[in-house]
Amino acid sequence: MSVYLHDIPLPQAQARLREALQDADLWRVLGEETIPLDENAIGRVTTEPIWAKVSSPHYHASAMDGFAVRALSTVGAMPSTPLTLSMGSEAQYVDTGDPLPDWANAVIPIENVESLDETKQITSAIRQPTSIRIRASVAPWSHVRPLGEDIVATQLVLPAGHILKPVDLGAIAASGHQEIKVSRKPKVAILPTGTELVPIGSQLKAGDILEYNSLVLAAQVKAMGGEPTRYPITKDDFDLICERVLEAAQDHDLVLLNAGSSAGAEDFSAKVVEKLGQLLVHGVAVRPGHPVILGLVNRQSKIKNRRSDNLIPIIGVPGYPVSAALTIDIFVEPLIAQWLGRRPLELPTETAILTRKLVSPAGDDDFVRVVVGRVGEKLLAAPLSRGAGVITSLVQADGLALVPSGTQGIEAGEKIQVRLYRSKAEIEKTIFCIGSHDLTLDLLAQFLSVHNRRLVSANVGSQGGLVALRRGEAHLAGSHLLNPQTGEYNISYIRQYMPNIPVKVFALVGREQGLMVKKGNPKRIKSLRDLSRHQVQFVNRQRGAGTRVLLDYHLNSMTISPESIVGYNQEEYTHLGVAAAIASGRADCGLGIAAAAQALDLDFVPLFQERYDLVIPKQYAEADLLTPLFGLLADSAFRKAVSQLTGYDVSVMGTIILED
Amino acid sequence: MSVYLHDIPLPQAQARLREALQDADLWRVLGEETIPLDENAIGRVTTEPIWAKVSSPHYHASAMDGFAVRALSTVGAMPSTPLTLSMGSEAQYVDTGDPLPDWANAVIPIENVESLDETKQITSAIRQPTSIRIRASVAPWSHVRPLGEDIVATQLVLPAGHILKPVDLGAIAASGHQEIKVSRKPKVAILPTGTELVPIGSQLKAGDILEYNSLVLAAQVKAMGGEPTRYPITKDDFDLICERVLEAAQDHDLVLLNAGSSAGAEDFSAKVVEKLGQLLVHGVAVRPGHPVILGLVNRQSKIKNRRSDNLIPIIGVPGYPVSAALTIDIFVEPLIAQWLGRRPLELPTETAILTRKLVSPAGDDDFVRVVVGRVGEKLLAAPLSRGAGVITSLVQADGLALVPSGTQGIEAGEKIQVRLYRSKAEIEKTIFCIGSHDLTLDLLAQFLSVHNRRLVSANVGSQGGLVALRRGEAHLAGSHLLNPQTGEYNISYIRQYMPNIPVKVFALVGREQGLMVKKGNPKRIKSLRDLSRHQVQFVNRQRGAGTRVLLDYHLNSMTISPESIVGYNQEEYTHLGVAAAIASGRADCGLGIAAAAQALDLDFVPLFQERYDLVIPKQYAEADLLTPLFGLLADSAFRKAVSQLTGYDVSVMGTIILED
Repeated sequence: MSVYLHDIPLPQAQARLREALQDADLWRVLGEETIPLDENAIGRVTTEPIWAKVSSPHYHASAMDGFAVRALSTVGAMPSTPLTLSMGSEAQYVDTGDPLPDWANAVIPIENVESLDETKQITSAIRQPTSIRIRASVAPWSHVRPLGEDIVATQLVLPAGHILKPVDLGAIAASGHQEIKVSRKPKVAILPTGTELVPIGSQLKAGDILEYNSLVLAAQVKAMGGEPTRYPITKDDFDLICERVLEAAQDHDLVLLNAGSSAGAEDFSAKVVEKLGQLLVHGVAVRPGHPVILGLVNRQSKIKNRRSDNLIPIIGVPGYPVSAALTIDIFVEPLIAQWLGRRPLELPTETAILTRKLVSPAGDDDFVRVVVGRVGEKLLAAPLSRGAGVITSLVQADGLALVPSGTQGIEAGEKIQVRLYRSKAEIEKTIFCIGSHDLTLDLLAQFLSVHNRRLVSANVGSQGGLVALRRGEAHLAGSHLLNPQTGEYNISYIRQYMPNIPVKVFALVGREQGLMVKKGNPKRIKSLRDLSRHQVQFVNRQRGAGTRVLLDYHLNSMTISPESIVGYNQEEYTHLGVAAAIASGRADCGLGIAAAAQALDLDFVPLFQERYDLVIPKQYAEADLLTPLFGLLADSAFRKAVSQLTGYDVSVMGTIILED
Repeated sequence: MSVYLHDIPLPQAQARLREALQDADLWRVLGEETIPLDENAIGRVTTEPIWAKVSSPHYHASAMDGFAVRALSTVGAMPSTPLTLSMGSEAQYVDTGDPLPDWANAVIPIENVESLDETKQITSAIRQPTSIRIRASVAPWSHVRPLGEDIVATQLVLPAGHILKPVDLGAIAASGHQEIKVSRKPKVAILPTGTELVPIGSQLKAGDILEYNSLVLAAQVKAMGGEPTRYPITKDDFDLICERVLEAAQDHDLVLLNAGSSAGAEDFSAKVVEKLGQLLVHGVAVRPGHPVILGLVNRQSKIKNRRSDNLIPIIGVPGYPVSAALTIDIFVEPLIAQWLGRRPLELPTETAILTRKLVSPAGDDDFVRVVVGRVGEKLLAAPLSRGAGVITSLVQADGLALVPSGTQGIEAGEKIQVRLYRSKAEIEKTIFCIGSHDLTLDLLAQFLSVHNRRLVSANVGSQGGLVALRRGEAHLAGSHLLNPQTGEYNISYIRQYMPNIPVKVFALVGREQGLMVKKGNPKRIKSLRDLSRHQVQFVNRQRGAGTRVLLDYHLNSMTISPESIVGYNQEEYTHLGVAAAIASGRADCGLGIAAAAQALDLDFVPLFQERYDLVIPKQYAEADLLTPLFGLLADSAFRKAVSQLTGYDVSVMGTIILED
């Protein structure tokens, strides 16, 4: 084990890097460049204040098509006593934008002027009457854009450190500039290392790990305003890695070494940094992503005397994709901000109610990906998978909730601070669906996105969904709970779990349940009876899942004891989870839906038909938020898409099962 | 005058364009392209759902460095009764990420294992002991990342219409893709027209208008995800414009014709559209920007039979820069969104309190640029210049307030809906400064931006500032109000205008006031006495301005009557405004500060020294928001920058004048 890895608090780690860079005179704008004032300037950061070189307008300009006059000469003009002005000395035709003659200080719009020549309203085609008649006076500077109305020469147009937006470019141009000084983009080298890594697109064999971190890191760096370079994969070889780091350091401002930042036998990053420069930090008390390395490398390792010119920072980025992405947000974003001369990105923060208890090591700042939505009056944060390897948790996340160091966890129902990735407006359009998992929900999510709604579903089983509805933690629940006494679906459970909450229940689909088995059904599983065979390994759904209720109902009626089933207590939370367990060989069979079997290329033994309903508390059933959902239940394109899933029957879709 | 221009309501105009494009089968994703999965994919929009081709992990992977075991073989291991497992058949060393052997279903981390060979903790260097000893059992699937933990093959990874973020690229790669289908970028031709237009960088003469709209429009289009082409300026010539439009239409999806969209003699856009295709809308009841043209052009004017293939939309964009930019937001953004297959941009909306009355034509949707900040409990929206030519109003705007059609205006203190350009977090860092204008405030704004504060100043004169503080509409006010009786600054006015509000007052600067005159002082103005000379045209500051109070004080003590001064009633709101009036020849002189004279290359006749203070209600003086400001008053870099302005004395800076 390495002697290095020792987690220090996050603020201390950040300070250590900052101070080292300050010492090396690298905590500043890296450099500037002059670029032309064109549309590619958007997003760049100004390095100096922009002062106006000219005024805009740079002369007194007419704001209308009309006649330039002296305001004083119009005094006395009234509807009953018109006044005549001679063209040339007292009035002059001007188009919008034309300069006023020196002697004029107001404009009368053409529509307020009569021509004496034709005794009718002047049209723009007749601009040169010999004189004009007016029936109202004008105030000085009426319908004039005076010199400097927009910009006065020498005024501050934009400060340094400003991120250029489209309209800024117009103001810069208007103030007399045709190029602009901006900070140069920091160059960031991204070095993936690991013998087990294979490039995107490779045929995978067991043990191969797709190298896509460098892609995500490069995209993050680019989005932050840096210029990434992705290097090819380097094997876990100390000398090769040293060589590659030195090579990359030559023409970059920052090296990201991914991964090998932990303390295993093949984790060389810390030793590489120590050899090539200075190891500042190895280990930060933050989850995910604690095995971070912060250090400096000498660009030319042989010239040690001119210190500040030769050092550049290096960051050892952990290998798990979620850890890697968060490391970039935490350590690289502020650095690039400093180098570009802009402020670090600050995500908007909201207080939300946590839907599920979070346990966390007391010493760590623990960042938990959450989905966020408003249910009734409450802004809810529902934690996603916490696995550092689960990149989809970042894809789905609406924000990052912090369980700060010093806390051992946060209880369900308590408040938590969330840094939001999405705008509040988007979050207000989130439909929280909880309960049983069904593939139709993926399709529903897709169709709803067209109607400006986002469907977020959490899979906690049918009963869990009803309990969540009672707690006010979702807008609707998917449920397929069979009442063993009556053979009827959901209603008795709704009354039991959600007493006194008026609901509306719609049928979503009818679907086939059966046994998923390996391709070719090698163990010849035909019915639930086969589950008791000793050599058959079963995988179950979790307690409360509708599929589990269905299983127990049929086991009971067939008098098969759960104890007789190997794997009865091995639980998965979704149909696809069960299918994956079978596909991987962890189990021989499990109860679930045909579509999940098909998805993972399994065989399917159909056993029962069941109904899957949507349970919606009345207060949400009548809210705008859900309107598009009801529309889709009758939408032929949606019905068609669902009916193309194997084992699905859409004839019941939209039928009202219960309405309080 | 054109017969066309006739404003119709905004929703009707939008619907007319949408319906015409639906008829032409152009209201859809324009096309798709397959691009490699690299960092340039960020911001692109998916055209089809992305389904996982492989699972991730695609095998059961160890989540730790350690030993793969059968969970069942570990049952019974306890601290007091260790259990021995033979290597090979019962335990096998695995690194993080390694596949589990077929027979294993759990991993024991290396730190929880003892080597029998050395009877001490195993290090990673010693991986192959003949057997290992454990003192705790493990549950099945402990420290294992099961197949499909992140992604299950066939699952939905991302829906169609999704804007790609960095982490999305990782999930797409992890699910087995190496390229991705995205919508192609709509090509937008931008055609500036106008005989008076000159390109950016031209030497300007009166009547020349810098053509920078095409730059702003191109940058907007690019930011929206389109691909802009800027054409050179076309003169106001019907045939030339027709030719250019047809040329641009050949290889673009949309033509933006700027300007000539109004109804003047030189406004050809409507006629051009009518000749080359179909005029759908001329005039929309929206301010600024009502002379909008929406239409279609035939790409090949001679082939009329294949209608849908040959039509593309054309938008006549008004010439004033604010109108032009808003037209793009209102009409082009939703169109590009549709063509890209993403949702239209929706700015977050907040309700704010209006600080100043807005009057608006009842029939129009009137968009007013506002700065937004929180003062105490109130979120305030302060209107910026409403001139359609004032592009700096868009640069400075935090949002767009809507005075909807059907309303004739909104009173100060009433609520108004604001679409925010900035995040709430940024807005919470806004310091509202009101009152008298001083150049030091520009410098202060610049220095504060480094400290994560934004200083927004509104110039309403010193007295206006104190009144605004009383109303709770700003955090601080700049004031230089001389008490003619006592010769003392500000205090008596503060007591008069802000009774019962505890304040803290700091001196900001001492500064010279005097008469700004034309270069070379052609009218030989030496003192206030010269203002009474008949041929001297004066320009004044507005009532309530400290400079006006100073003027009146001295006029009174010199017994000069205001009536004797030509231009006494001609008012400007800032020092630079007065300077601009003199520079442009509108006036011969005005009272103001040396720096303003210098800014516009005027001569300056110094007359008096005065003090300029910052007045801060105690509740804000003690708030975090203002802390950086107090820091700057003692900051040597800031003091140096101010002292370099002509006529400024920083020796008083930071002195406490009054503290309640």
